[in-house]
Amino acid sequence: MRNAGVAGVLAAGLAPAVHAQVAVRWRLASSFPNSNANLFGAAVAFADAVRAMSGGRFDISVHAGGELMTPLGVLDAVQRGSIEMAHTLPSYFYAKDPAFAIGAGLPFGLDAAQTAAWMQAGNGRKLMNGFYAAYSMVGFDAGNTGVQMSGWYRRPIRGAGDFQQLKVRATGGPMDAVMSRLGAAPQPVAAADLRQALAKRRIDAAEWLGPTDDLALGLPGSVPYYYAPAWWPGGLNMSFLINQKSLATLSAENKAIVDAAAAQASAAMRARYDVSNAAALKDLAARGVVVQTIPPAVIRAVFAAAREVHDDNDQKSPEWKRIHADYLGFQRAQLRLSRLGGSRMEAFVSRMQP
Amino acid sequence: MRNAGVAGVLAAGLAPAVHAQVAVRWRLASSFPNSNANLFGAAVAFADAVRAMSGGRFDISVHAGGELMTPLGVLDAVQRGSIEMAHTLPSYFYAKDPAFAIGAGLPFGLDAAQTAAWMQAGNGRKLMNGFYAAYSMVGFDAGNTGVQMSGWYRRPIRGAGDFQQLKVRATGGPMDAVMSRLGAAPQPVAAADLRQALAKRRIDAAEWLGPTDDLALGLPGSVPYYYAPAWWPGGLNMSFLINQKSLATLSAENKAIVDAAAAQASAAMRARYDVSNAAALKDLAARGVVVQTIPPAVIRAVFAAAREVHDDNDQKSPEWKRIHADYLGFQRAQLRLSRLGGSRMEAFVSRMQP
Repeated sequence: MRNAGVAGVLAAGLAPAVHAQVAVRWRLASSFPNSNANLFGAAVAFADAVRAMSGGRFDISVHAGGELMTPLGVLDAVQRGSIEMAHTLPSYFYAKDPAFAIGAGLPFGLDAAQTAAWMQAGNGRKLMNGFYAAYSMVGFDAGNTGVQMSGWYRRPIRGAGDFQQLKVRATGGPMDAVMSRLGAAPQPVAAADLRQALAKRRIDAAEWLGPTDDLALGLPGSVPYYYAPAWWPGGLNMSFLINQKSLATLSAENKAIVDAAAAQASAAMRARYDVSNAAALKDLAARGVVVQTIPPAVIRAVFAAAREVHDDNDQKSPEWKRIHADYLGFQRAQLRLSRLGGSRMEAFVSRMQP
Repeated sequence: MRNAGVAGVLAAGLAPAVHAQVAVRWRLASSFPNSNANLFGAAVAFADAVRAMSGGRFDISVHAGGELMTPLGVLDAVQRGSIEMAHTLPSYFYAKDPAFAIGAGLPFGLDAAQTAAWMQAGNGRKLMNGFYAAYSMVGFDAGNTGVQMSGWYRRPIRGAGDFQQLKVRATGGPMDAVMSRLGAAPQPVAAADLRQALAKRRIDAAEWLGPTDDLALGLPGSVPYYYAPAWWPGGLNMSFLINQKSLATLSAENKAIVDAAAAQASAAMRARYDVSNAAALKDLAARGVVVQTIPPAVIRAVFAAAREVHDDNDQKSPEWKRIHADYLGFQRAQLRLSRLGGSRMEAFVSRMQP
């Protein structure tokens, strides 16, 4: 066992202290396939950093979605303590309690930078961890996909009526309820099957992630219409979910290492997606994909439906109600700041580009 | 000395390993006063994290601007190796080589999130460190102030002609050249003297940082006009500058710790500023400060002057020319992505706020 730990350290290209012995060994189960370098990679980067900082004494093995358990089985496993931690998208557990989704980002919600601010310097992380305590877990930010798109459509979306009977990919999160309210019929499809499902007309539309991952899944060419912007303005926020007792048994040193490694992996994923999404847009254009614009009347209809879904959640979950109220107040204050500063100047600089 | 190290660890509220001995002791000189919790605090957070992660074996003492040397003396000290590292704003060293300013952010340049992406996943950090190698230094991101403002003015700015003869606070960076080109007369004033200098009419205008720090310096009420947006859309980027040899002598473990602690402190400062700037806007409104809008024709004139200054720098510094070309290309790609996704959806959500 010890040899395997050291071999892992060496494989990662790190020089462990000569007499390094693995003192703490954890298992991390990801909900993501290891074929996705950006998503899965954040967990690998986290474990590599923990190993490097601890001189190999704290070793976390990273398991791809499906390897130890089903991709969505990770929550129960962390709660039970059969694994120490997971890397996942909290909105996958929306059916358990809608409050989970707030940790991932909501339709028309905070963008990646605002989410980071809410989590790290606002009340976000505190509120989410208060909620997670009932599941014996502590959450840490674990990356963000950055900008998303509204996805791929067989037929153009000209009015809200075009969602009627539309078979769209189910996301597992709050957008399924929003789409249902608009008359669409969300269908569960595994990511790996998306291209086929679109090509073989099992579904009519699919929102997956953003330019990087849509390209990686081969979605261009499956159906003709690609729409922007996304209902999620600035991306989905991933989490590391750690079993409370496992975290509590760590030394102060290792706790600090987990904290910093998560912050580093999270910031690195955001940066990587911002860069790769911009590059993927060029690739998409080179393949002849024209990004269509969701008409304003459609955005307004989806926004209204999202508001109804959020109001429903206020009735269903006191945790959602409490956390969502803080989230909305935070968003209002950030948008006020952005209107004065960031977004106004960005619009100007954007117009001045050659 | 060892006792002092352990006392420091205890004072920071951390539990060191029982037999922790300080093996590495570094000094960090900040260019910022310790009265500024956000700016100075990032260096303290960094040193605290390094101490916690190393179990007290790597101890970095943090010195406020002026304590060991003048606030701008930190660069030479790191280059000479008389201290191991500094926390500073690279644009302070613009007069040495304009390329320094690119590491801090440029007029009409990248915002905080784009800067992080350029540095961490684009070519930014690589290019800046290639440049810093001539100064025997390695740079790490060390926080960003987020959104800034155009500052405080005695008289309204209605046209570009209003800059003529205007005594504005000199920033030490490229905006001084831009302002000079517009006919203004930049004057050096220490931050602590800004309020008095405005009140006693020694200067007519001052761009300091953003809502948080402008409020902390007591600028509201000094002169009547507060203008937004800033020439810097998304904030100034701080750096940790580390002596190359000092960094090279660290163990792999401590190198990884420095890397993660910097990423963590940097992300935390950005999050804190985003939150405190939004709160400060409310405070300013409560004090009766009305944020004025820079007229579009003035922004265009300042933009044109900034472009001339940047073109001048292309002639003066091959390092600037090379790094700036990459910076501009990166900005164009990010703006294209934002126009499709982030900023368009933000504008919609902003309009829908109650």
